[in-house]
Amino acid sequence: MTEKKKTIMVGQSGGPTAVINASLYGVIAESLIHTDKISRIYGMIHGIEGLIHDDYMDLSETLTPEDLEILKATPASYLGSCRYKLPEEFSSSLYPLIFQKLESLNVGYFLYIGGNDSMDTVSKLASYGKQHNSDICFIGIPKTIDNDLVCTDHTPGYGSAAKYVASTVREIVLDASVYSQKAVTIVEIMGRHSGWLTAASALARKETGDNPLLIYLPEANFDLCQFSRDVKAALERQPNVIVCISEGISDQNGTFICEYDNAASTDSFGHKMLTGAGKVLESYVQNQFGVKVRSVELNISQRCSGMIVSLTDMEEAAQAGKTGVIAALNGLSGKMISFKRTTSNADEYVCQCTVEDVKKICNQEKPFPSDWIIRHGTDISEEFSKYALPLIYGEANRKMKQGLPVYLYRNTK
Amino acid sequence: MTEKKKTIMVGQSGGPTAVINASLYGVIAESLIHTDKISRIYGMIHGIEGLIHDDYMDLSETLTPEDLEILKATPASYLGSCRYKLPEEFSSSLYPLIFQKLESLNVGYFLYIGGNDSMDTVSKLASYGKQHNSDICFIGIPKTIDNDLVCTDHTPGYGSAAKYVASTVREIVLDASVYSQKAVTIVEIMGRHSGWLTAASALARKETGDNPLLIYLPEANFDLCQFSRDVKAALERQPNVIVCISEGISDQNGTFICEYDNAASTDSFGHKMLTGAGKVLESYVQNQFGVKVRSVELNISQRCSGMIVSLTDMEEAAQAGKTGVIAALNGLSGKMISFKRTTSNADEYVCQCTVEDVKKICNQEKPFPSDWIIRHGTDISEEFSKYALPLIYGEANRKMKQGLPVYLYRNTK
Repeated sequence: MTEKKKTIMVGQSGGPTAVINASLYGVIAESLIHTDKISRIYGMIHGIEGLIHDDYMDLSETLTPEDLEILKATPASYLGSCRYKLPEEFSSSLYPLIFQKLESLNVGYFLYIGGNDSMDTVSKLASYGKQHNSDICFIGIPKTIDNDLVCTDHTPGYGSAAKYVASTVREIVLDASVYSQKAVTIVEIMGRHSGWLTAASALARKETGDNPLLIYLPEANFDLCQFSRDVKAALERQPNVIVCISEGISDQNGTFICEYDNAASTDSFGHKMLTGAGKVLESYVQNQFGVKVRSVELNISQRCSGMIVSLTDMEEAAQAGKTGVIAALNGLSGKMISFKRTTSNADEYVCQCTVEDVKKICNQEKPFPSDWIIRHGTDISEEFSKYALPLIYGEANRKMKQGLPVYLYRNTK
Repeated sequence: MTEKKKTIMVGQSGGPTAVINASLYGVIAESLIHTDKISRIYGMIHGIEGLIHDDYMDLSETLTPEDLEILKATPASYLGSCRYKLPEEFSSSLYPLIFQKLESLNVGYFLYIGGNDSMDTVSKLASYGKQHNSDICFIGIPKTIDNDLVCTDHTPGYGSAAKYVASTVREIVLDASVYSQKAVTIVEIMGRHSGWLTAASALARKETGDNPLLIYLPEANFDLCQFSRDVKAALERQPNVIVCISEGISDQNGTFICEYDNAASTDSFGHKMLTGAGKVLESYVQNQFGVKVRSVELNISQRCSGMIVSLTDMEEAAQAGKTGVIAALNGLSGKMISFKRTTSNADEYVCQCTVEDVKKICNQEKPFPSDWIIRHGTDISEEFSKYALPLIYGEANRKMKQGLPVYLYRNTK
């Protein structure tokens, strides 16, 4: 006889964000309400790899209510993460192994917080489970700073990263303006194929026409000769020119600008590992114009900073986690929690959680809308600001002690 | 007959900080109290260059009380900055030109906010003035994220930069810990010759022995072979190793580590322009150990971020500006405002403004104490934490609008 109460198993996967732990908080907080249906809350350490290697922790017993509040505001992945792709073939011995482990732990609900690669894991497990008459419910909770998941208005993690980018670029503009000499500052922002995050640099302007004067996304072809003309024209307008670029800008042949300099390697998903488009353009501008040039790579702080987190983003991330638990308890499987915006007015922003088939989402990428890219691929339209401003709204609080943020660490428990 | 009321002339010089405008705020706020002695408050645009080129603005008329509050929390230099070194020879025609301009504007008080190069300007003007019986009072207000001015416990700007470094490194440690694979992250922190700011990365630890496992300052010789052994030992202790380095680390021959890769150019003060020690070590570790390596240059945000400003630092910066006005009104000249700590207990931190001869300060650098560098140049002692923690204490507020910080811009007024 099987127990009526089931274990909920939760994991985090893919790159860190400022609010992926807010989603974990949401999963735990909602699960604690449903003790009639949920016996235990287990967290996989390093995502699905933790399940495979019997590495998981009991989250219902180890975390105090105060810990949970700190977890909500802790950036990066409390449970650890992985970039593990399940085999395409269901004949792989890994699937029965995973399901055997899930069943031995009496798991009824499996929640996975991640981006489109992680949704691929949810989709495969749900399909395999369905084929083998498993009654485990598999639900995906979206997260990615790239904002490139389809079938959702936006993804948790994006709002905070966008807020970090906009605020930091605003400060870089201030910093660059202190000297009177002509200078170009190139800011490199994360985004291999997706320009959503780089577009947020447009929000840094205090008014239309201000710095950043030039913004380049991967969705538009980057032409070095045109870039040279753009920079020349910008330097004629004002002495301090800020240029914001996505790390993944590429030319019309699909060659990444960073590859003009470096041999690029690939990660375990076959993605090209990119560095240095900013550095490549820094030397290019230096040679072309002889002005002072600096490149600034916003680097990992744009995804893991807890300094400037969007309250909207954090609350939505928690809500996605909570909604995921409810969806699983209602017997849904192979679904991802998604966001549906019900108004388009920034002053009246309302967004609701709904569910979408995870199969439609995994391994897809939502490009930045081409009609929001204006001025021959050097700027972003006002429509984007209307879309993005509600997502960065509000200031999330975090606990401070002795002048520094207090975060929750797994290993110290 | 000369007017009894005098003009106060204020300028900012050297690199931006998060609180150099808080000192400007202090100068303006205090000057507005003494309308019996001060007729006008003028701000030089781009420091002493603005005076030479008749480029200055009236600060008493253009800024509203609300503007002043925003100014206090605006990073970088509102008035613009310069790196202009006055001639060594008083026979230069520049000196009579400057004094003629000051006298034509009825300047009685000259306040200059900057680092040790800027104090050189104050020292020269005060000396020349004294030789020529000028009654203009020249006062220096300290600022530098490097914390390398002598004759003062610390300098405004350092506390906020140290807070940014400690908080950001804490978040980078979190981010780097999410994957299980062995990895080394190298964080490059500002500091050509001074390790004070890099030392602040030690505050990022949640407990003794945590990441960052290795910290290297310019005050200790950097040996690549020893570094290799240090990293090997650290990787044996734990899979994720965070290494914090000053940009200006150098070997026993005085060769900067960044020069192992790049030809370094010099700025107008003859300083070597450094980039890339982190990148050099990234490739080195990659080649030696074959593990995942990433280098993160904290770059200009460590000096210009308004995201995490120390309230103590901001209030002290304002106080230095106010004290500078009072010192000038009292007839002092050739002095710099300095900070004297009257207790050494972190819980009872008390610091007072005093004055020191600017001659003793300019062109000097205060190195990080050698007895605070421990474990063969790879770590920082507990004494440093006791010194630094009070300086990063408290959270400064800034006005937010539509999810982003509101700053004051000179050009829009």
